[in-house]
Amino acid sequence: MANINYEILKTIGEISDSNKGWTKELNLISWNNREPKYDLRDWAPEHEKMGKGITLTGKELRKLKEILNEMDI
Amino acid sequence: MANINYEILKTIGEISDSNKGWTKELNLISWNNREPKYDLRDWAPEHEKMGKGITLTGKELRKLKEILNEMDI
Repeated sequence: MANINYEILKTIGEISDSNKGWTKELNLISWNNREPKYDLRDWAPEHEKMGKGITLTGKELRKLKEILNEMDI
Repeated sequence: MANINYEILKTIGEISDSNKGWTKELNLISWNNREPKYDLRDWAPEHEKMGKGITLTGKELRKLKEILNEMDI
């Protein structure tokens, strides 16, 4: 597996945790020293391992917020 | 590759689109006929192919909404 260089610049919030200790988190992450992006992803305790996730730009995050605020949830 | 059975029960909103026609979308999807989950994912035009994404329960989506509304974005 290729080495992925990343830095968690800001831990923003925890969406949920599983019984195995993994957490779904929203963070601000720089991947390979590129411009930081928002990142919604599962993490093992202490961010030791990462699971599946997606990255979002600031614009995408604002749009997501709009959509969620229009929903009846 | 194993066959994945899914049904998009509701298209909720489009987060962004790329210059290749792919869109990042929030949908309500049933995977393998299981209980539907919210799903944030990239899709090719007409949902012909799916990209990376994550699924979220209703509870997780509400928590995400809370977090986004506390952010200065």
